[in-house]
Parts: sequence; C-alpha cells; structure tokens
Amino acid sequence: MKKQIPVISSFPVGNELPQQFSQFFIGQAYLAPLTSNADLNCPVSNVTFEPGCRNNWHSHTGGQLLICVGGRGYYQEKGKPARQLMAGDVVEIAHNVVHWHGAAPDSWFSHLAIATNPQTNVNSWLDPVDDAQYKQATSK
Amino acid sequence: MKKQIPVISSFPVGNELPQQFSQFFIGQAYLAPLTSNADLNCPVSNVTFEPGCRNNWHSHTGGQLLICVGGRGYYQEKGKPARQLMAGDVVEIAHNVVHWHGAAPDSWFSHLAIATNPQTNVNSWLDPVDDAQYKQATSK
Repeated sequence: MKKQIPVISSFPVGNELPQQFSQFFIGQAYLAPLTSNADLNCPVSNVTFEPGCRNNWHSHTGGQLLICVGGRGYYQEKGKPARQLMAGDVVEIAHNVVHWHGAAPDSWFSHLAIATNPQTNVNSWLDPVDDAQYKQATSK
Repeated sequence: MKKQIPVISSFPVGNELPQQFSQFFIGQAYLAPLTSNADLNCPVSNVTFEPGCRNNWHSHTGGQLLICVGGRGYYQEKGKPARQLMAGDVVEIAHNVVHWHGAAPDSWFSHLAIATNPQTNVNSWLDPVDDAQYKQATSK
C-alpha cells in the first residue's frame, strides 16, 4: 500500500519501484514513466524518494540527466562532497561516473531522470550508501 | 530590456531568444540552456513565452520532447485540435511532425525543450501561426 505521499511537484508519482530497481535502493521510491516513443531515444521518468531514501552507488555507460522538480535531495560523485538539490536544479552525469542520488533525511524529493544514450547504455550497480556515508554526505 | 516576467517555475528564464530563433516566433520568448555536456546527446533548455507568443509551424527530423513546468500554453499538430498544456504535462513530438507551441493568450508559459536525436536532427521552419489560426486553436 502506498504511504501518504505529499504533493511536491506537478508530475505524477506513479507506483512503487519494481524489484529490478528497488533491490538497489535503501528506503521506498516511486517511478512514473512519462514517455513512450522509443524513436526519440530519450526516456523520461519521474522518480520520487521518501525521506532518507537513496540508491546504491552506480554508474551508466551512457550517462544520465536529473531534472529536479520538487522537495530536497542530494547527489554525490565518488570522492567528492555531496551536492544539495532543489527544484530547478539539473545534474549532468557523465559516462561511467560512480554516484548516488536520493532524498534528504527530512524531506521527500522528486527528480525527472533521463536515460541518455539509451541505445547502448548499461547500468552498473555497486555497494549501498550505508548509514554512516549517508549521514556524512547529508549533514553539511 | 527584459519585460517584467512573473516567476512561474523553479527554472531560470535566461535571455531573449537569439535572432536565429526569434525570426520564427511571434511575440517575445526567452531561452535558458540548462545543460552543456554534449556527450549526453540530450540538450535541455527552458523556453518561456510571454502571453500570446508562439513559434511558427515547424518540424524536427529527430523529434522533440516538451516538459511543461509553469503557466499555461498550447501545442498543436497540423490537422489536429490544439492541446492545452499545464505544468506536469509532457509532449512527445515524433520525427517530422509539423506542429507549433506557445503560450495561452492570457498566460505566460514555460516548458523545458529537449532536442532529441541531436546528432542528426534538422529543424524545418514553416509559416507563422497567424492571428486567426492562433485564436481558433486557443479558444476551445
């Protein structure tokens, strides 16, 4: 059953992440695909994270774009400080850069996610962002 | 000089459209590029239209995606009724489909525009949407 999800953007929230993705997340996230024309090579989905929810360290051979549309979250690349994200922020994730993204500890967060270069993209999922890493990243 | 532009989204408004684009618009529009990594093949810009502003009939060989983020606007494909657009709406424009987009007569409008398949895309600009066509499209 869906938790009570606050309205933080104009975009649909969709359904709980399917297991193929949720196995790589800590906490609950929701996925709403927003496009269907495969010829455009630009699949867009809205991803909504409950407070504290984040995905594992991972990378994309084709890169990824995040367009923040509501709430407050974080993005961190391996070896760098985390970047706080608010509606209106855009994150360009280059090919093969190891990173994670998710909500702040005390806020829901939604971003549109665009799988760039989907014709050849492969995702590599790595270790979870454990509580100590998450606390350090989000406490600044 | 910029007109007084209301805040209708969290995204930057940018500057007046350069002449290479504005020659194909009726009314004033503003352009804010939001990305710069060409390897992602997914250039995203925020386009803001003043009330009554619209672009000419046109098409893209690589298609286009519109992600509506504020205000109220319209999208019309040749031979079809216009579709009213609000924040949260997404428009998938297939390859070579002749269309126009712009603001409502009485509202500012912002959408993110994604040039899909930019490696090969070519835009074809056609006739302006004259006042009679615009009035008919936006009066329903």
